Formats: sequence, structure tokens, C-alpha cells
Amino acid sequence: MATAGKVIKCRAAVAWSVGQPLTIEEVEVQPPKSHEVRIKIVSSGICRTDDHALHGDMKNINFPVILGHEGAGIVESVGEQVTELKPGDKVIPLCIPQCGKCSSCLSPHTNCCLKTHMSEAQNVMPDKTTRFSCKGKAVYHFLWTSTFSEYTVVPTDAVAKIDDRAPLDKACLFGCGFPTGYGAAVNTAKVEPGSTCAIFGLGAIGLSTIIGCKSSGASRIIAIDINSNKFEKAMFFGATECINPKDYCKPIEDVIIEMTGHGVNYSFECIGSTDVMKSALECTHIGYGTSVIIGGAPPNAHITFDPYLLFTGRTWKGSIFGGWKSKEFVPRLVADFLANKFNLDGLVSHTLPFEDINEGFHLLQSGQSIRTVLML
Amino acid sequence: MATAGKVIKCRAAVAWSVGQPLTIEEVEVQPPKSHEVRIKIVSSGICRTDDHALHGDMKNINFPVILGHEGAGIVESVGEQVTELKPGDKVIPLCIPQCGKCSSCLSPHTNCCLKTHMSEAQNVMPDKTTRFSCKGKAVYHFLWTSTFSEYTVVPTDAVAKIDDRAPLDKACLFGCGFPTGYGAAVNTAKVEPGSTCAIFGLGAIGLSTIIGCKSSGASRIIAIDINSNKFEKAMFFGATECINPKDYCKPIEDVIIEMTGHGVNYSFECIGSTDVMKSALECTHIGYGTSVIIGGAPPNAHITFDPYLLFTGRTWKGSIFGGWKSKEFVPRLVADFLANKFNLDGLVSHTLPFEDINEGFHLLQSGQSIRTVLML
Repeated sequence: MATAGKVIKCRAAVAWSVGQPLTIEEVEVQPPKSHEVRIKIVSSGICRTDDHALHGDMKNINFPVILGHEGAGIVESVGEQVTELKPGDKVIPLCIPQCGKCSSCLSPHTNCCLKTHMSEAQNVMPDKTTRFSCKGKAVYHFLWTSTFSEYTVVPTDAVAKIDDRAPLDKACLFGCGFPTGYGAAVNTAKVEPGSTCAIFGLGAIGLSTIIGCKSSGASRIIAIDINSNKFEKAMFFGATECINPKDYCKPIEDVIIEMTGHGVNYSFECIGSTDVMKSALECTHIGYGTSVIIGGAPPNAHITFDPYLLFTGRTWKGSIFGGWKSKEFVPRLVADFLANKFNLDGLVSHTLPFEDINEGFHLLQSGQSIRTVLML
Repeated sequence: MATAGKVIKCRAAVAWSVGQPLTIEEVEVQPPKSHEVRIKIVSSGICRTDDHALHGDMKNINFPVILGHEGAGIVESVGEQVTELKPGDKVIPLCIPQCGKCSSCLSPHTNCCLKTHMSEAQNVMPDKTTRFSCKGKAVYHFLWTSTFSEYTVVPTDAVAKIDDRAPLDKACLFGCGFPTGYGAAVNTAKVEPGSTCAIFGLGAIGLSTIIGCKSSGASRIIAIDINSNKFEKAMFFGATECINPKDYCKPIEDVIIEMTGHGVNYSFECIGSTDVMKSALECTHIGYGTSVIIGGAPPNAHITFDPYLLFTGRTWKGSIFGGWKSKEFVPRLVADFLANKFNLDGLVSHTLPFEDINEGFHLLQSGQSIRTVLML
């Protein structure tokens, strides 16, 4: 613990203002305060939520900010009162914390801790100050994770200790993409054996949703994307059919209803488009169809829909981080991964050195990547 | 079976055209065909759905029509192939049939049989003809029930045999109002002990929902109506607090969120207003709140809402006939009633002779009645 209590100078990708490319800067990272840990980040995925935040399409973000929320790393030092973690522990920072005390944490029905950014801004640490600075300026945190930095500081409510054997180049996927999609199928929708599913959007979340549907025993998994290049991978993970809305001159929900008779049991929106959310609801079976919104729509976006769709027995719900209570279940998911319960290799399409982070964002924006992982 | 195979002449309330008062007419009721029964109706409640249909606010209705869907009666005669019912049996016509064969009937998750009016028009019998005529004109059926007639014909998929001891003046409530509200709480929402519920609209459906919430062990039941005269009865059935949106200068959802900290576990919309449906969703707890739409909105009504409400873990669903598979569960609910599991006396606010049916509609439209029951 040579660095404990000292400021660390290291590289971080700073977003100075909305929509501007990130710049790799030397930043100062303060030591962790009480109930906080400082983590050396080893890998970090680039998720669409980072891109939304960078472009101002997310609430409660302050600039300059260090983005990144899908990371894996090693505890470098711990603050006072921290007994559950020690330097050297392999960890995943958690973009959805689990405080264990709020009404959501105490409910068996949700993982939506009231300390998440949906309830409170997570742009500073719990004491309302930031641990980052650059060129004499305070730099804000992002979702309490800020994994686009060689070192970050995270409250203990937002960090999960994982198995020492976990490979940190892949484990970052457990910080967002994999649990989010997989859990939407197994926890939120509770897909039943023999059911029919439709997955809209075939990025890392959509493919992870397919993994969840398949492992739940779905007999028919219809994968939908406007980029047919993604179909091969969707079939690899378990899709039974792939369709491209551009190939039809009628609404895709009508196509799916025709394919299935009366619609699917479960549908999943993995994009964040309000139009697709509506199609996903409409393609479900009258009486018992369930549609799950996984993609985050832009702030102030609205959906206009016919309530008759719900009145006639459909269910519409959302899923954050796959419904997993994060601190409790991320270690278990990593353990399942180490036990070969699922193979995630195909989810990472690109691996880049940290300094190429803007290239990673470009791959995302242009639809060329499934998931780009940065090695820090 | 003196009348079997013969046309019966009797009184019925005919709706000749949209929005016009009903007129009591002498109608001819044909004998039941194969898989149909003819029923002598003893009592019939007047429900808001009848009023919607009368005013053209419902799909798949043809005029002239005999409305009414909350009735109780006695089998007068049966058609060919009918083995499960015989003349003299006490029965409830079912506005939501249970064919037992469609994908919905075969699913354990819904009661929304594909023979309901949500999928197919129920304005004629399954052979596409009507059993009613008046003054030489064919008169249409309504939801296959048409209980505003001294005699009606119903397919066997849409009739439940009930206990011989059931009092037919009250049993009509099992044709719609009571199962719809009670089941929305116990089946659709699955209200848990200790939870907090909000019920919007305190007619027969809303009060039955309160009964369901209370019997499920809800610890806090907030009843909401713009008519404070309804609060006494709501408290009688189990409400713990009653609030009137007119008493506040802020949106009622904000009032409920302040009353409860972060919102309720379950909310129920028992009116059919899209604005109230939105408020009912908004007043539920982030992460796990569930809102159930029970009221039928007018055709072509739309809701515009922020998908963030669902994204952050809320669930929005609908409930038709309380989620009960009708033919199977109506007899069981009647048996529970006979075993004093619930007291429904307070749900009937007015009892009128059949010929005063328009007075019954007036009581409904003016908000003076909870449920008016007509004695035929």
C-alpha cells in the first residue's frame, strides 16, 4: 500500500464538454475517503450509455467528466471503515449500486437502489466532492464508476469483489452488458421453457438477451436488426430466426405477428428507440405477452400508444442491469462464467489500447462493433 | 322443457341507435342452436361498459342491440350437443368466454380467450346469426350475453353453472364487477401482504379492488375519487385513507408520492381515463411499482408518457375480468361468497324494476350509484 493516502497521477480520458472527442490527459486521483476504494482499472468496455452521456442525452451529467461504467480492475487502496475489501482484490465497479438499506434494496422485487443516478446524481462521491482533477480543474465522476481512467475511486456500495481467477480482460463485461441483457430475460421477463421471444437490436445487450432466452429454454428466438451483418453472431448465440425490418414493406410488428400466429410471449427492446419500444409491445401476444424495455431512451422522449394493448392483458416493464442486485449477484455471475455456464468470447468484437478510445466510440457510433474493450 | 325449440316472446331493452335511450320492447328470442343455451335472466347490473357501448365508445358493436353483460339467471332450454347444462340450472352468462382450446385458454398466464370481443366481434352467435328480433328486424347480441332481456341465448363457452343456493339477485355481480376488481388485485397485481395500494375510482370495480387488496393483506389502501361521497363506502370495504384530487393544487400522483415516501407498490385505474392511467403509473415506486389498468379507455384514445417510468423498473399491465378464467372460476367465486368469504351487500346501491332501466343509466352517468341492479 505504498500509494495509500497519496494522490495518484495517471492517464484518463476526459470529456471536457458535450459532444467533443475525449482527450487522454494526466489527471490527479485523490485517495479514497471513508467507505471508498481506489481501483486500478485493467479493462473497460465502451457502452452506448457512455455515448449518450457524451452527447448530452442523459440526465444528471456534469462536465468535465470521466466516463466509462463497464470496467474491471484491482483494488489499489481502501479508505477508512472499509473492511470487506483489501488492496489486490479483483473487483467490478457497479454502475447500479446496492446500498442494502433503501426501500428498493430491501424489496425482493427490484435492484433499483435509491442511490442510482435514476434517483440521485452520481457525479460526485457521497460526500458531494470529486476525487478527480485535471489541469487545476475539478473533474466529475460518472455513475460513481468512471472507468475510463487508469485509477478511479468508488464507494463500497458500488463495487463487487470477484473471484481471483477471473480474467480481467473479459470480466469488464460483467459491469454492464452481459448482466443487463442476460438478466432481462431470466429475471425481469422470467422467460419460460418453450416460449417465443423477439429481441430488437443485436449489440452486446441484445446478444446477451439471446443468451438468457436460450438458457431459459425458449424454443423460438427471433432476432431483429437493421444491420444484417449482425445475424451470424445472433444465430451463434441462439437466435432461431433473424429478420431485417428493411426487407419488409409493412411494420415489423405485423411481420412478427404473422410469423407467430398471435405474437410472441416475450419481447425485448435493446436499443433505446421509442418507436421500437412500441413495436416491441405490439408484437406480443394478447392476454399474456410481456415486453421489456432495456434500452434507455433520450431524456424527454415520450411514447404515444393505445392503452388497449395493455388493457387486453399485455405487460410492459423495464429492466435495469438485468434486475440483478449488483453487489450480491455480479460475483455469482462471474463464478458461473468461470464454471463455463456461458461463453462470452463472441461479445467482444474489438480490443483496443486505451489511447484509441475515440476509435472505439467511432466503431460504436457507426454500428461496426458489438463491444469494444479498452485495455488500460 | 315446454318451450324448447320454440320462439319465446318477452321483454327486452333495445338500443336502437347510438346515444338514444333504451326502449322496452317485445322481442322474439329464437331457441338455442347447437352448443348454445337459452337463459331466463333474473337480475342484471348496469356497468359503465354498457354505457360506453350505448354511446358508441366501444369497438365491434352493431345496432340495434340488446346490451347488458352482468346477469344471473336460470337455464330455460339447451341446444343440441349440450351435456354440461340442463333446464333449471342457475347460471352466469360470461362476457369473457373460456373456449378452452385457444392459445390464451391453454396458457396459464391469461384469461383473455381469443373468442372475446377483443379478438372477434361477439355481436352474433358463433354461426354468425342472431337469436333476437324485434318488429321484424334482426337485433344484435352484445358480448354474447345481452342480459337486458328476459330471455337471452348464450354459447356454452360463455356460461358458468353456479351453486343452486346462490341468490340470483346478487349473483349477477359475479358476471362482471366483483371478479373484475377483486381479481385485478389478487390475480393480476398479486398484491402482497404489507404493501401499499392506490385505487383510482370508487365504483363497483374500485370497491371490489379494495376488497381484493384488503384480503391480500395490504397494510395501506389509498382510495381516490373526485366524489367524496364515495369515501364512506370505500372505508367500509377496507380503504385506510381517502383523497379527493379536487382538494389539492398539485397533481394527485405527487400527493401520493409525498404520502408514501417514494410511491405505492400497486395502483389500479378503475375509470377508463387515459390521464388517470398515467397518474396511476406515476404514483408507483421506482424499481418495483406495478400499475394495473382495469378501466376501458374509449376507442382510439392514446396515452403519451415518459418511458423512463418503465425503464426504471415499474410494470404496467391490464386486467380483464380480473384475470379469472371465467367458466372455471366464477363458480368457485360464488362458492366463496356462499361461504361468507366476502360480503358484497354494499356494492349494490340501487335495485330497480327492469322497466326503469333508463333511470339506472342516469344514476350511473350522474355518479349517484355504485351499482344499480335491475330485477327482470
